[in-house]
Amino acid sequence: MEIKVVHQILEWNEDCSDGIKADLKEKKVCLINVMGSPGAGKTSIITSVIGKLSGKYDIGVIEGDIAGQIDAEKMKSLGVPVVQLNTDGMCHIEAMSIKNILPDFDLDKLDIIFVENIGNLVCPAEFNIGESFRVALLSIPEGDDKVEKYPLMFQTTDALVLNKYDMIRYFDFDEQRVTANALDVNPDVEIFKVSNKTGEGMDEFVAWLERKIDA
Amino acid sequence: MEIKVVHQILEWNEDCSDGIKADLKEKKVCLINVMGSPGAGKTSIITSVIGKLSGKYDIGVIEGDIAGQIDAEKMKSLGVPVVQLNTDGMCHIEAMSIKNILPDFDLDKLDIIFVENIGNLVCPAEFNIGESFRVALLSIPEGDDKVEKYPLMFQTTDALVLNKYDMIRYFDFDEQRVTANALDVNPDVEIFKVSNKTGEGMDEFVAWLERKIDA
Repeated sequence: MEIKVVHQILEWNEDCSDGIKADLKEKKVCLINVMGSPGAGKTSIITSVIGKLSGKYDIGVIEGDIAGQIDAEKMKSLGVPVVQLNTDGMCHIEAMSIKNILPDFDLDKLDIIFVENIGNLVCPAEFNIGESFRVALLSIPEGDDKVEKYPLMFQTTDALVLNKYDMIRYFDFDEQRVTANALDVNPDVEIFKVSNKTGEGMDEFVAWLERKIDA
Repeated sequence: MEIKVVHQILEWNEDCSDGIKADLKEKKVCLINVMGSPGAGKTSIITSVIGKLSGKYDIGVIEGDIAGQIDAEKMKSLGVPVVQLNTDGMCHIEAMSIKNILPDFDLDKLDIIFVENIGNLVCPAEFNIGESFRVALLSIPEGDDKVEKYPLMFQTTDALVLNKYDMIRYFDFDEQRVTANALDVNPDVEIFKVSNKTGEGMDEFVAWLERKIDA
């Protein structure tokens, strides 16, 4: 009974996601779904990437949060259009929420919309939200067993960004293990080692984003 | 429509949780629901606590994971009875799963069962699982805005354990902010600063656990 309900919700979500994809393709807007655990560094990475891309592209942001608007306020200070999406306790963003929010943006003037999903390695991976592609963050302090424990997130992402890489000396983190596990479930995944704090690895990640956006 | 379904599931879960509570009270077994983000240190903390309590109490563990049995294998090496609960993709543990697992333990011989919930700051907080009390972990690298962003978890827990506290010098983490936010949503919460790695603060946390278990 429960499984049936979830299945119906997923199916309905999928139709809605396809509709968003078609609309955004027409408007030439690239929607990037950024996911990861609480504290993996989603807001900071998006902020830095906007700084690097804003000369070339017009950018908007949808800030997903269960409650509050801490991150949306950070984004607003960058001078980009931001919509706060509060899920009121829900653990992921669904396509219908994105569909409802898109009219708040002037899509003719935008090239990219970043969606910062809810901090969660589980549920967001199950829901397509009309994205052009996905980016999953995993920060070094979270540990090297996360791909094995939360496979769907890493199986369905286009890029795996190992963030807080400057911290690797302080943590017992086996990089080979994570890389091997990620390629095992997702042979085409691009893996980046970055530190948003020191800037290490960010140029490679941003160059990849540009190639995906322009494609 | 969706909301109604979720409501029914929650109600049904609550009845099941109450049933477990009654059964465990009769058997004098304390069930401890341990929650936190992926990588907050749930397995390591439970392992250390078992080391400190195993002379005094008989202990069992239920290891919740979406996939795999990495943590259950770690626990088994401690010589305590362990049951691996794989949720097959589901983002939280429900009471019915605990009810189904309890017959696998010899409850007459146990004083404590630790449940390591799925690594997730959102959904597990919504589901009572028949626990005697809750422990929520927040590790320093996750950042100091997490209580504001994921309020239900911190509102419903009996203890907030700030783990990886030895790392506070490397991260921009405002301890006052977290403490104030936690007490704001949950005035009775007990807050502990611990490092499982250095052992700092663990004795205070374990002493509190003993008082709760003996109560």
